[in-house]
Amino acid sequence: MHIQDQTPTMFFLTPVLVAVVCVLIVWIFKNADRNANRKKGEARVHPWVDEDLKDSTDLHQVEEDADKWQESEESIEHIPFSHTRYPEMEMAKRSQEFYELLNKRRSVRFISNEQVPVEVIDNVIKAAGTAPSGAHTEPWTFVVVKNPDMKHKIREIIEEEEEINYRKRMGHRWVTDLKKLRTNWVKEYLDTAPVLILIFKQVHGFAANGEKKVHYYNEISVSIACGILLAALQNVGLVTVTTTPLNCGPRLRVLLGRPPHEKLLVLLPVGYPSKEATVPKLKRKGLDQIMVTV
Amino acid sequence: MHIQDQTPTMFFLTPVLVAVVCVLIVWIFKNADRNANRKKGEARVHPWVDEDLKDSTDLHQVEEDADKWQESEESIEHIPFSHTRYPEMEMAKRSQEFYELLNKRRSVRFISNEQVPVEVIDNVIKAAGTAPSGAHTEPWTFVVVKNPDMKHKIREIIEEEEEINYRKRMGHRWVTDLKKLRTNWVKEYLDTAPVLILIFKQVHGFAANGEKKVHYYNEISVSIACGILLAALQNVGLVTVTTTPLNCGPRLRVLLGRPPHEKLLVLLPVGYPSKEATVPKLKRKGLDQIMVTV
Repeated sequence: MHIQDQTPTMFFLTPVLVAVVCVLIVWIFKNADRNANRKKGEARVHPWVDEDLKDSTDLHQVEEDADKWQESEESIEHIPFSHTRYPEMEMAKRSQEFYELLNKRRSVRFISNEQVPVEVIDNVIKAAGTAPSGAHTEPWTFVVVKNPDMKHKIREIIEEEEEINYRKRMGHRWVTDLKKLRTNWVKEYLDTAPVLILIFKQVHGFAANGEKKVHYYNEISVSIACGILLAALQNVGLVTVTTTPLNCGPRLRVLLGRPPHEKLLVLLPVGYPSKEATVPKLKRKGLDQIMVTV
Repeated sequence: MHIQDQTPTMFFLTPVLVAVVCVLIVWIFKNADRNANRKKGEARVHPWVDEDLKDSTDLHQVEEDADKWQESEESIEHIPFSHTRYPEMEMAKRSQEFYELLNKRRSVRFISNEQVPVEVIDNVIKAAGTAPSGAHTEPWTFVVVKNPDMKHKIREIIEEEEEINYRKRMGHRWVTDLKKLRTNWVKEYLDTAPVLILIFKQVHGFAANGEKKVHYYNEISVSIACGILLAALQNVGLVTVTTTPLNCGPRLRVLLGRPPHEKLLVLLPVGYPSKEATVPKLKRKGLDQIMVTV
C-alpha cells in the first residue's frame, strides 16, 4: 500500500529516495519468496510428523551407493560355504509346512498377561539378528521391555499421542468412521503383554575413529529382521501385532535411553493370546494375485 | 560489476534510470536466491539417483496417519482366534532349532544353474505373502523370472548401470579400493541362478472407484515379507543374496511390464549353491550387542 501510494509521485522525488524505495521493493520480494518456500514446506510435511521419521536418512543412503549392501564383505577372507541339501520331496514338504505354519499367523491385539519363557525371547531375537543387512552393518537394536512400570509409561506416551492423532490429526470424516467402529486410542495390550519388543533402526554407526559410518538401507535391513522375528514368534506359538506408533519415536527413544542415531521402527507386544482373543475375518490374496512368472 | 560501475554516477541520472537499475537489482537478487536453492537441492539429491527411489512415498505416507496399519481391519467381522500352544520345553526347543537353522543362512553369490522345484518356489512366495501389512493392503508383487533370455536382459541392465556406478558414480577412492579387491560389476549369478525373484512394492493401490488408495508403510511391509521369504528359502535349503540394484528399478520395471505404481525393492537370485561357492568369513553380533532388556 505504502509503495503504491508513493508511485505516482516517484518521478518528482530525488534519486536517493527512489533508491531507498527500490531497496524496500527488493526486501519485500525477497521476503515474499522466503514465505512462499516456507509454506511449500509446511504443505508437504505436516507439523505433527514424528521428527524421527522425517529425517529421510534412507533417501540419502540410496544416493550414496548401490552395492555397499555387499561391498564390505569383499575385503575379508572367503571360506567355503557349507550347505545342507534336502531331497526334492523333502523340500516340497518343508516348504508346504512352513507356509501352513505362517499362514496361521494373525495380528492379535488381545494378549494375556501370562509370562513367557526368557530363553524363548532370547532365541527369537537371536533368529532376527541373522537377517542380512547392507554392508553387514546389523543396524538393529531390540529393546525388550518387561518392567511393568516401563510398559505403563510406554502406554501413556503412545495413548497420549494417539489421542491427539484421533482428536486433531486424523480429520473429521475418519474420526466419524472410527466412532462407528468404537475404535479409540486405548491400547490395553501395552500393559497386559508380558513383553514389548521395540525395534530400533540405527541410521548410522561409528567408525573406529569416531566418525559417522552410514548404514546403507538400514530401514529395509531392520524390516527384514522384523519379518524373521515374526516368523520366529509364530514358530513358538507366541502372538503379536505389528505396530508403528506415530509421533512416539523420539519420546520412547528418550524414555528407553537409546541414542539419537537410533529411530523406533516397530513395536511388537508379545505374549500368549488372551482367552477371548478375536481377529478380523480377513482373507489373504491368492498366489496368482501376488506372483507373476516370466 | 556492471551495477557497481554505475553506482558513482547514479546521482546524476534521471529517477527513471535509477528505477530501471533497481529493478535489475531485484531481478539479480531473485535469481541468486533461486540458484542457491537449486544448488542446495543438487547437493542433497545426486543426479544419478534412481527416480523410482526418489519418490519418497514412504515419508508422505507416514504423515497421513499412524494407525492405518490396523484400521481397515476394524470395519469387518471379528472371529475367535484359533491358537496352537506348545509346552514351554517345546517352545524352547523350537526357538533354538529355528535360530540354528537361520544362523546357517549366508548371502551366497555363487549359484548353480541346476533347476529348482516349481512347487517349492510357489510355497516360499505363499509364505512371504502371509506377512502383515499396513491396513492389510498386501502391497507386494513377486516377479519370478525363469526365462533365460529375460534373465540375461536383466543382467545386461544391471551390469550396465553397475558399470556406470563403478566408473563414474562411486568416486576415485572407492573404485581404487574395489580394484584391489578385484570386485567389479559382473553379476554372473543373474544368468546362472535358475530363478530370479524381483520383489516390487506397490506404493499405492486403487479403490473400487479407480481412485488411488495409499499403501501405508508399504516399504516396511514388503521388507517384512522379504524377511519371511528369506527364512522360507533357508528352510528348504535354497540360497540367495539380497540385492538392491541401484538405478535399475525403472528399467527393470518396464522390461517386466510392471505398472508405474510398483517400485523394485529387492532382487533375489535363487538356487542351489555352486560347488565352489565361498562366503566371506563374517561374524554376527552377539545377543548382548543387539538386545537390551528393561
